[in-house]
Parts: sequence; C-alpha cells; structure tokens
Amino acid sequence: MPSPLPPTGSLLWRSLRVFQVYGANTDVGKTVFASILCKAAKRHWHNEEVAFLKPVSTGPPDEADDQHLSKYAPEVLRETLFQYDVAVSPHIAARVSNKSVPPDNTLLARIRTFTSELASRTSGWLFVETAGGVHSPGPLGSTQADLYMPLRLPVILIGDAKLGGISQTISAFESLKIRGYDVGTVLLFKEDVYQNHIYLTDYFGERHGIPVYTATLPPARVAHRQSDEKNMSQYYREASSNDAAIKILQYLDTRHGQRIERLESMSSSAHKRIWYPFTQHKQLSPDKITVIDSARGDHFQTLVTSPSAQNGIASSTTETAGSSLSLLKPSFDGSASWWTQGLGHGNPALTLAAAYAAGRYGHVMFAEAVHEPALALAETLLAGTQNPRLTRVFYSDNGSTGTEVALKMALRAARVRYGWTTKDGNVKLGVLGLKGSYHGDTIGAMDSAEPGTFNEKVEWYEGRGFWFDYPTVLCSEGKWKVKLPDVLLRYCGEGEGKKERSFTSLSGVFELESREAGGQGQVYERYIVDTLKHLQAQGQKFGALMLEPVVLGAGGMLLVDPLFQKTLVNVVRRSTHLFAKPDTISQHGPPSSESDTTKWAGLPVIFDEVFTGMYRLGRFTAASMLGVDPDISVHAKLLTGGLVPLCTTLASDSIFQAFETDDKSDALLHGHSYTAHAVGCQVALESVRELQRMEARGNWNWAQKAQLGHDVLNVGHEDDSHRGQVLSPPLGRCGDGTPDKSTVGVWSVWSPGFVDWMSRQTAKVDGVWALGSVLAIHMKTLDGSAGDTRAMRLGRYRRLC
Amino acid sequence: MPSPLPPTGSLLWRSLRVFQVYGANTDVGKTVFASILCKAAKRHWHNEEVAFLKPVSTGPPDEADDQHLSKYAPEVLRETLFQYDVAVSPHIAARVSNKSVPPDNTLLARIRTFTSELASRTSGWLFVETAGGVHSPGPLGSTQADLYMPLRLPVILIGDAKLGGISQTISAFESLKIRGYDVGTVLLFKEDVYQNHIYLTDYFGERHGIPVYTATLPPARVAHRQSDEKNMSQYYREASSNDAAIKILQYLDTRHGQRIERLESMSSSAHKRIWYPFTQHKQLSPDKITVIDSARGDHFQTLVTSPSAQNGIASSTTETAGSSLSLLKPSFDGSASWWTQGLGHGNPALTLAAAYAAGRYGHVMFAEAVHEPALALAETLLAGTQNPRLTRVFYSDNGSTGTEVALKMALRAARVRYGWTTKDGNVKLGVLGLKGSYHGDTIGAMDSAEPGTFNEKVEWYEGRGFWFDYPTVLCSEGKWKVKLPDVLLRYCGEGEGKKERSFTSLSGVFELESREAGGQGQVYERYIVDTLKHLQAQGQKFGALMLEPVVLGAGGMLLVDPLFQKTLVNVVRRSTHLFAKPDTISQHGPPSSESDTTKWAGLPVIFDEVFTGMYRLGRFTAASMLGVDPDISVHAKLLTGGLVPLCTTLASDSIFQAFETDDKSDALLHGHSYTAHAVGCQVALESVRELQRMEARGNWNWAQKAQLGHDVLNVGHEDDSHRGQVLSPPLGRCGDGTPDKSTVGVWSVWSPGFVDWMSRQTAKVDGVWALGSVLAIHMKTLDGSAGDTRAMRLGRYRRLC
Repeated sequence: MPSPLPPTGSLLWRSLRVFQVYGANTDVGKTVFASILCKAAKRHWHNEEVAFLKPVSTGPPDEADDQHLSKYAPEVLRETLFQYDVAVSPHIAARVSNKSVPPDNTLLARIRTFTSELASRTSGWLFVETAGGVHSPGPLGSTQADLYMPLRLPVILIGDAKLGGISQTISAFESLKIRGYDVGTVLLFKEDVYQNHIYLTDYFGERHGIPVYTATLPPARVAHRQSDEKNMSQYYREASSNDAAIKILQYLDTRHGQRIERLESMSSSAHKRIWYPFTQHKQLSPDKITVIDSARGDHFQTLVTSPSAQNGIASSTTETAGSSLSLLKPSFDGSASWWTQGLGHGNPALTLAAAYAAGRYGHVMFAEAVHEPALALAETLLAGTQNPRLTRVFYSDNGSTGTEVALKMALRAARVRYGWTTKDGNVKLGVLGLKGSYHGDTIGAMDSAEPGTFNEKVEWYEGRGFWFDYPTVLCSEGKWKVKLPDVLLRYCGEGEGKKERSFTSLSGVFELESREAGGQGQVYERYIVDTLKHLQAQGQKFGALMLEPVVLGAGGMLLVDPLFQKTLVNVVRRSTHLFAKPDTISQHGPPSSESDTTKWAGLPVIFDEVFTGMYRLGRFTAASMLGVDPDISVHAKLLTGGLVPLCTTLASDSIFQAFETDDKSDALLHGHSYTAHAVGCQVALESVRELQRMEARGNWNWAQKAQLGHDVLNVGHEDDSHRGQVLSPPLGRCGDGTPDKSTVGVWSVWSPGFVDWMSRQTAKVDGVWALGSVLAIHMKTLDGSAGDTRAMRLGRYRRLC
Repeated sequence: MPSPLPPTGSLLWRSLRVFQVYGANTDVGKTVFASILCKAAKRHWHNEEVAFLKPVSTGPPDEADDQHLSKYAPEVLRETLFQYDVAVSPHIAARVSNKSVPPDNTLLARIRTFTSELASRTSGWLFVETAGGVHSPGPLGSTQADLYMPLRLPVILIGDAKLGGISQTISAFESLKIRGYDVGTVLLFKEDVYQNHIYLTDYFGERHGIPVYTATLPPARVAHRQSDEKNMSQYYREASSNDAAIKILQYLDTRHGQRIERLESMSSSAHKRIWYPFTQHKQLSPDKITVIDSARGDHFQTLVTSPSAQNGIASSTTETAGSSLSLLKPSFDGSASWWTQGLGHGNPALTLAAAYAAGRYGHVMFAEAVHEPALALAETLLAGTQNPRLTRVFYSDNGSTGTEVALKMALRAARVRYGWTTKDGNVKLGVLGLKGSYHGDTIGAMDSAEPGTFNEKVEWYEGRGFWFDYPTVLCSEGKWKVKLPDVLLRYCGEGEGKKERSFTSLSGVFELESREAGGQGQVYERYIVDTLKHLQAQGQKFGALMLEPVVLGAGGMLLVDPLFQKTLVNVVRRSTHLFAKPDTISQHGPPSSESDTTKWAGLPVIFDEVFTGMYRLGRFTAASMLGVDPDISVHAKLLTGGLVPLCTTLASDSIFQAFETDDKSDALLHGHSYTAHAVGCQVALESVRELQRMEARGNWNWAQKAQLGHDVLNVGHEDDSHRGQVLSPPLGRCGDGTPDKSTVGVWSVWSPGFVDWMSRQTAKVDGVWALGSVLAIHMKTLDGSAGDTRAMRLGRYRRLC
C-alpha cells in the first residue's frame, strides 16, 4: 500500500515576514527587485535579519542569483537549496545533472526547515525567489505554482515590462489566483515605449485592489566589468534608498501584520456572528473554533493559537518572536469534510473545471433549456450506475433536497398506481425504512426518518413511516460477524437461533447468492413479511421503501447486513398485495417477468446514495454491492469531488410516467434557482470521470489485492492463530463463471492488518469495519458496552495509487 | 439612461470552420503557424476558401501579418479590420494614431460581418489571429481574452518554445479556460535545448486531453532579402505539405463537426434523460428545449435549430452550407435566470473569486471551524442590512433550505418563550403570512405557504398557518394605484371605502410615515387585529410571521402595499396577548422600550428576501423600504451574483438564545454537507461588495434621477395630459430633515417613460410596476380581466452605469 507523503505546513511567523517572489516570465527582473527589497529592508530594519532564499537555481554557479546578491547586497543572508549548473528549466537541469533531485515534499520540507531556523533566531524579512515563470516546472516536473501552493506564502509578482508583458503579467497573476495565492503587490520596471506599468497599475488597482510599484530599468550592461559593477551598485544604492522601496516594504509589513491579526481574531468574530449547524453554542467558546487558512489534499492548514496546542503542553502564552513554530500547521481532515472530498482539497483540475463553467455560462436557468455540463453529467451518471431502470436525472442542490425530490416522485407514483386520492385526508402515505436512517434536515427529509436526536425536537417534524430493525456487520477480534437484533431472533427456526453469524471475511458477507442459496435470507424474509402484514392490518399505507444501501452514515456508521437489505427489497417488490387495495392489485399486480427489470413493483424503491455512492464504498454505487437496482437513486456529497453543492435524483421511466398527464400541475413541483448550475455540473463531471478513469486504470487494484490477502489470511482460521498462512482466496469460491456482482470488489483502502489490529483493541473497541475509503471504529462506552462510533476516511484515492 | 449595447452572437457555421489563433506570448510564431495551416488547408481542401483575418494589427503596414501571408500564402484570402502603424500594443497604437478606435462591440460586429459574408459565399476555413498574448489589450483597453469571449471561437493556442515558455503557455491556457474558451490544440516550435514541446505534450495530453503538435523552427533570417524569402518559402512548402499539418487540420475539422453534431443532438438527449423542474413533460418536445452554448452578460448564446426559428418563417430545413446565419444567436435572459443574475453571465471577477476559493480551500467543513470567505461574508451581510436586530448568520444551500432554517429558528423561539411543549400533539404551530406567498419547494417551505398550484398536489404538503389578503400596487394608465381586496372594504370607515387609492408616484406609496400620519394604516390595522382575534378564538397557534417584503415573487410578481406589511408587523409585535397564554404574557409581555430594537415581540418576524434582497429592488434589503427590521432574514439568489447556490439566514440574538441550553440536542438541528462552502461565500462576497461599491459610487444615480423626473412628470397630473410639464419633485415633500428611510431611493432601472407607456396598453395590460431591476407587467386575460403576469428584469446593473 502506497503511503501518503507527510504534508508540509504553511509558513507564517509573527516576526519573520516571508514573501515569495514570482515572475510573470523569466528575465523580468526577479533578482533585481529582490535585491532592491533586501537592501531597502536591511537599511530600514537595520537591527533585523534580511534573507534571500533560492530553493532551486539553474545555470552556472557564478551567474547564480545568490552570487548577484553576494556582490550587490552582501549585507543579506543568502541560501540556495538546490543548484543545477545548466541554464535551462529545473526539470531538465535536474535530470541532466548528477546531483540528487528532491521530491516535491522534500523540497518543501527543506524550505520549511530553513525558514523555521531563521525564524527561531531572529525577526526580519525573507524573500523566497522562484525560478522562471509561475508555471515553470520544478525539479521533478510539477509546476512551481502547484508545487509551492501548500506554503501559502504571500506573493510579490514581478511583472513584465516588455512587449507582450501586460498579457504575461495578467495570466501569471490568474494562474496564481486560481491556486489560492494572495498576491500582495506587483512590481515592474518602468518602460516608456510599451508603458505596461500604466496599464497594469490601473488594471490591478481597479480590479483587485493590488498596488503596482515600478523601478527604473537597471543600467545597460557595458563590456568593462568594473564599470558594469559600479553602475549596478550605483543603481541599487538609489533604488533601495528611495521612498518607493520603503513604501512597498511598509505596505507588505502592514499586510503581514493584518493577516496575522485577522487570523487571530477570526475565531472570536465567528463565535459572535456565526450560527453553526448542529452546534450547541452554549458549549462553544472561541478557542474551540478552528481557524482554517487553507486546505490542500487531505489536510487543512489551521491556526496554532498557542504552542500548547501543538505540543500538548499547558501554556497560555502565544508564539513569540524567535519561535521556530509556524502559526499554521497541517491538520488531517478526518471526515473528508463531512464525506464530500474525493480528489483532495484545492485540486487544480476541479478548480479549473469550476472556473471554466463559470466563465462559459455562469449559471443559466434550467427551464426547458439544456447546457453541456448538465447533459453530459446526466448521461455519465445514468451510464455509470449500470442500473437498467434509471433513465432520468433531476437536479437539486443537496442530499436533503434530493431526498425530498425522491419522496415526491415515489409517493406520487404509488398514489397514482394504487388510486389513492390526495384530497382524502385519511390517506397518509409513509415510507418504509431502517431504524437510524438519516436523509437530511429539511422537514420532508426529516419526516422520512424515525424519531431520534436529529429531528424529534424540531417543531414541524412528524415521522411518517415505519422503520425496521436489522442485522449489522462488524469485525471484532479479527472475526467478521453479522449480529441479529432481538426482534429477529424470534423468527429464527431450529438451528438458526444464533445472535451472531461469523464469516471468514467481509467478502463472505457480500456473497449474497450463496448465502441466499444456503437459506440465510429466510429468517429475514419471515420477519419482513410478518411486519408488513402487521402494518397492513393496522391500516398503514406506504408510498416508498427508502434505504441507505449497505451503510447508514449519519445514523452511526452502521454496516447493514447486505442480505437483509436485498431481502427487504425483494419482499417489497413482490408484495403488491400488502400495500394496495385488492382491486388495484389485479390491475397493477406483480409486473410480468419481461418488464421486471424496469418497472417498479410493490413500492418504489429509493436508494439514498448521498453518502455511499460515487466510490465512497469503493464502487460507483453501493446498490451494485447488493445486486439491487433501485427505482430512484439520490447522489450528492462526493458527486462534485468536494467543491460545491449539487445533487442528482435518478429515476426510472416507470416513476417518471406517473407525472406525465394532460394537467400541467401534475408536473413534479420542485425546483431551485440554481438547479443544474453549470459550475456544479462541470465539476461533478470532472470528478466522476476522474474516479471512473482511476477505476479503469486499476488505481485501486493494490487495495483490492490487499483485501484479498487479508481474506486469505483468515480463511479457515477464525481463531486467528495462523495469520501468516496463505490459503485459497475467497474470490475463487465464486466458481469459474463470471463472478457475482455482489462479491467482486469488496475492498478498502485501509490496510487489512490495521483493521485486524484495531478489531482486537477490545478494551476500547467494540468492533470495526472498512469499506472503500471508510473506516468505522465502533467504540465501547466507559462501561464497556457498545457506544460511540468514530468514522475515519482517506479523502483522496489518488494519493494512494 | 445609458442603453445596453447590442450583443454579438457567437460564430458557428456548419461549412465554415472558424478558429481563433491565440499566442502564449508575442513573438511565438502565431503568423507562421497560421500561414502553415492556411497553406495546408488550401492544399487539402482545394475547392474551398481559406481565409485569414487579423481584426487588429499594429506595426508598419509592410510588416503586417497579412503582408507576410500575401508573400508566402497568396492563395489565401486575407483581411485586416483595423491597422495601426506603431509596433506597440493596440491600446497604445490606437491612441497615438489618427485613426478611429472601434468600441469593443463594433469590433466584434465587424468580425461577425466579415465571417457571415464569407460563410454565405463559401465553405472552408477561417483563422482569426489575435495580437500579442491572450491578455494583450485590444484597441479600447479590454484584454483580448475578455473582449473576444462572446464569439466563443475554438482556439488554436500557439505555445512558447523559448526559455520560460512552459510557464507562459500554461498560464495563457488557464486565462482562456477560465473564460470558457475551448482550446482545440496547442502548437509550438520544436526547440531542442529547452524542450518545451516535450513537457507541454505530456501536460496538455494527460491533464486536458489536448493534442500538442510541433513544427520545426523557421530558418534563421539572413541579410540577403531574396535568400531570406527563398528560405522561408521553402520552409512553408515543407511545413504545409507534411502529414502533421494535415493531421492538425483533420483533427480540428473533426472537432468542428462533433461540436455541431453534439449541439444539434442535445435537445433530444435532454428530452430523454432530463427531468425538468416544474415541467409537464407530456407537453415538452425536443424542439421546445433551448440549447445554451454559453452565456455572457444579459444573453445566452443559443442554438438556432432552423432558419425559421430566427426569421419566424415556417421551415423545417436546417441551415445549409453557404448560409450567412450563424448556428448560434444571442437570446435575452428575460428572468435573469430565475432572478439569480446580478453582474451578468460569465463575469470574470466572479469566476476568479470562485476559482480562488476553490484553489485555496476547495470546500472545508463548517463544524466548529471558520474560514475567511464565510466569516467575511457574514460580517458584510450583518453590516449591510443595517438591521440592529441581526447578529447571527446561518448558512445553507438555497432559499428553500434557508426558509426552513428560519422556520426552525422562529418556531423554537416562540415555543420556548410561550412554554408550548413539543411532545404535546395538540400544539401545532402555524405561520402567519400573505396569500400567494412562496418560500420554496422542500416540504417545510411548502407547508409555510397557503395551498395553491405550487404545492397542493404534493403528497406530504400540509399548509400550516394563516394567510392574509392584502392590498396591491399597480400603475395603470399612467396612475399609481393601491387596490384593496374585498375583505378589507368591510373595515373601511366613512370616507375610506374606496377600492382603490391613487398616488401621484410610486414614491408616494412608499411615504409610509406620512401615510400613517394621514390615517391610511387604520383600515389595515382593524382588519389585521380582527383577524388575529378570530384565529385566537379558533384556538390556532402561531410561531412566526413570514413575509416576502414588498414583492411576492413566484406568487405572481405582486407589489404589496408596503404600508400593509409594515402595519402587519407592527400589530403582530405588540400583540403578544393574541398569541400566548395569559400566564406567559405577564412573563414575556411586550418588551421594555429600551430593548425594543433587538428583541422579538409577539411573534418572530421572518423576512424572506430571497427574491427581493441584495439590490434586486434597488436596495440592500427590501425591509429597509418598509422601515421594518425583521428578527430573521433569508437571502439567496442574487447573493452569489448568479453563479452557485448559497443561502444565508440571518437572525437576532433574541432568537439565537432560544437554542442555547445545557442540552446538546436543543441546538439548531440543520446542516448540509456543503454548509458555507468557500466557493459560494467568496463569490457572494465579491458580488455583494461590488454591488455595494456601485451604490456608493452612485452608479445608479441616473436611475434615481430618472425616477425622480418621472415622478415630477406626473405630480398633479393624474389625467396625464401634461407629460412635459415639470412640477416640484416628490422627494421635496419629505421636508428639510433627513428623509425617511422608506421614501428615499424608490427607483428602477426601467425607463419611467417606458413604464408609463406600458401602463397605457390597456387592451392587453392590466397594470405595471417597476422597482430596482424588476419590471412586472400584469397582463389581462383574453376576456380582458387581470390575469397573467410577465416579469422582466435587467440582469446587470453594471452595464447601465
């Protein structure tokens, strides 16, 4: 299993002002401007250190930028981390050199080390100069703008004063901006023919509030070396001592101070002004609010409010001048920002997709109109689910609204087929579901879940339906077990009355056909049928079966026995007589076998895949793990790769047709202003396709193989005494034919060894399961009973490949 | 009143393949590559026309790019639209020349005319070559990438083979991409030292699926002119006849065909796969679905499916070779894409804001964490409303969810104060509102509106509340009238019994203090008090008053008499005895006068400003037009300037405190995965601040003055016989003191003359009103009665300034 590289923290010290010097192009005067700033800083802040860092330098050492500084700004501390002698881009210079080529994270770590040491010694200034233009490749090929993003250093952009330089400067600025860089100022030479500085001063001032400063051009080179150096020294003397240079530095100094001041006041301002979701504010204090400066990959960059926060040492003092600790540190995003992240924070491909759609459309209304991202995404999703029932895509904004759309669809379809009238106040249609289900926080979504912490105190909440008990799956002490709730034990026949069923592997749990063949579903079936009959006898009416397939997310990260869910769907689909009036049964009884695959039967089946879908559990849909094709499927969260809200509710024609009448008001009455907004659709398209490509390329094969290995280790060894012994792989049990959908690809990115180890921490851990990118650790409460559930994840599949 | 410039349609012809040649920098070989492509095209498609268009050329005419083509590619049709003799950027060259400088839209129109004429004559190829780099300024200073966006020509990007060229090429690409350009291919010279072509081939291929082609460098210039020309001719002969050049063209030709094919099949694919909101699909056919290729400013670029669609002539043939009509045409976005647009489609500032946040954060979870865009937006909104009650911001995804959040807030606050218990099934809290209100399509939002077309067929809909009748405002036959519903007539005292009240201006309607002083609110008050007593007698309980201030949007674009809404709020606020049990009244009776401005009284007052707020009606809030400070205020739609979904529910501390207890589950139980997503917050911040700056800069002063003029025209002339006569301006009536909030700034961007004229189209128009950017035309039905309402808008304030 490839291990994620350690993240590098952003660089921010109170007493050391660090800026990154980027150029709009090569040869625009980066080093000249850096020298001016260094010299001016040293002159003005003469008791402080001024340093110049060139992380990567190319070209003959005697022509290197730090040599230039050595000559003209000897008062400045200079350092070059990696020097390659050929005057080409670092990615080529590094390749043709005999020197070591640092991986990107090593390079970042070296910059951090240098900066930390400097900050621990002194206050002052540090200018970090890049090579070439903003997108010039670093030693290993990543462009600098991507490579240095995590440092989040404020930028001094050196503009291009030459012909064409306006374009170069604006484009370079945009490349930085779309990666979340903050450009503090633009500096460029004053050149009177092209007058780029005049245009750019207006442009950056008016549009971005960024000041542009100029310097006169350095003297023309002359052949005589000493004269040349004398001219240049004279130039620097003048340039570094005039008001403009000091003004720039004072401006940057002010911005530096304001940045820290703002970061440090944010939690208290938020504490006063923000009303957080699901948060008991009485228990919230400013120090509990995490200030997120930026995020990249799997990590936030968060404000360290005091050294104690980093060291675990009780201390109330904040970091002072001379500290080696940055004010920002990487923090692991353990819940993938509420399970939304797929390709990592600050992913440049998703950013560019969002910006492209914003530039091409903005948002365009979705009323009898269509645009490419919405259509392409609909086509991609319908094809991706491989569910022959699903033919239609309805767009909304989040899982909760998408669930309400699904409910409106299902209830109408059921009502129309079974002839229940709306105006009849006695017809209250409920949903069938599982206990602990969660579908969102709008009232309709709440109403579809059983009463519980998430809803019962909400004034308009009214649970509408019935929610089944169900067996759950957990690995404890190295063994996979299906645990039956008490109510199910009553239905167990002779020899079935075990509260737990053990499996040699999680794959075994998902071998649904063989488990069905072995009669394991019969207990479930008896319970379900009996319950439905009971509900029918009570006169309850239902309009939908709604499930979170495989895993109940917010309900406690419960892995439901997939056989139970499959059985539930199957029973509902063949039980029209338990839902409809007898006269409608004859009319709309079980559909003929030829139409079975597309028409809904019994009740419309809704799968809420908001949490489970889009590869969260390792597959495009979790439905495919059950071998069940729902009539309606809801997708959100990972859909947009973790960038902006968007939801799709997919439906079958059989559902759709219930709304097709001659009456306009029979249409599905739901819509949001930003329905199918182009930005969300384009980002989703980019993300979904990338995940599909990763699957097709076999990027997760290692995880599937590892899982296989794990299964192997346990086959026939439920007592776990032979961990090292290799036996036959469980996939082999599927026989020679095409493997059953539901048994292929049950895998996780979490190391099987780790899962196994965790399952044995019996003092604190009740059990554990891992699937796709989710790791759920069911903790014991203090008294040793099952209790809290901790859910972890690895947000990015990419990094693991 | 400044008039919007006519939009230019995108350029797309079936038989004429038009491409725009952009350079990663100046001097990268744009003209050389264009010449190669032109010559190769002419060789391969010898029966077709091949043309080269240089919209703007700078430098001596004999060195101009079309002279180069004239020399080396005489077989190609050449045209230069604007030629300036100085070899500097067009914005300077144009300024120093004595020639005319075309406004941007004139330049676009000239390009379109040239292209149309060419397309009408022949099939073939047209290469449109830009000047300098992608962001080099055009003649009037807009950068080319912005200027040429509306044409939506696919791009041939000429990469930079020099040192630094990798960076230049990627940045140029990104600047194009974030403006919605489609880059078809990247071409650059093969240069063996820097090897940019190797890096860029991988980069564009892997990341963007864009092929990169190379050509050998042209021969070095030699002093002898004839040798030089001979070398160059030889170079072109070889370069244009080799396979690579043909391969590029064939690739571009295929893409061109695919683009049209896709556009033409989109409506039928959408018809099969998309489930549209509010749409009776039985009445929908593919030809009714508008295909939107892009959008810019106030216009979509939509596919013309047949000439008939453009000419209104019945015809079933589609455009054929030789047509002068582009396949794309501009279509006015009459509803501002469901009232979301503020700064126009494809606004580069909003795009950059979105991309910046995406690059800096992606989305980061909003649980006890804070990030700059969310906090800064919260601060900006709280300050912007100038409502001293509002202190808290809760984020959600759209107006419907934001309304549900508001309801949860208000109902809880009322329940806690008045001591109603949740578990008591008899306590069903309703809302007070106005008939025809609309707050969204999730079940809770639906339940807060009276039964009607939008909700009553929805299975779980259950209207919870009471909705008042109310007087409306309309201008008909040049006169502003407040019309009273029948139920109110009963409450009119002697002399008050008029069904209509006339006003000399809309400003007069909003002079609430003087109208109150004149006793106009007394009728309203009697009706409201009487109704509330009646409801109390029935035992109905209420938890909120929820209003769309000033205008009911989806309910029919009804302009409600602001005095009625103000009176309703005032009566509710002082009528605790009509809502609470007597014992709680003593405890929580009318708050003391000192706390009046911040504590809710009677019932929490919710303003749904989703449609009306953020300057849609000309002010930051519509509440300010009523002089009312709600306890809870909901904002969406225009909030993000029309880019992505986001909603904020602002609340007072008095509401907030109802949730602060020692019980965690008393927290506000609502949250979405993308709560306060950084992209939405950043875009909203950019948009709201820009609108605030526009207000501060006085960008709409002309409209306010025009409105004033309009008022003037009508003062004392209700019979409208003296339109030209100027009398005293209505604002003068406010006296010498500070004008009352509610009478200042009632204005519209719609020409008063036009509104007046429209109000006189009595055969079809029942009445009209205009406020802010909204123009509502109430149409008569076929039988002459009031009926349909057409709502128009001008999406962009900016363009009007």
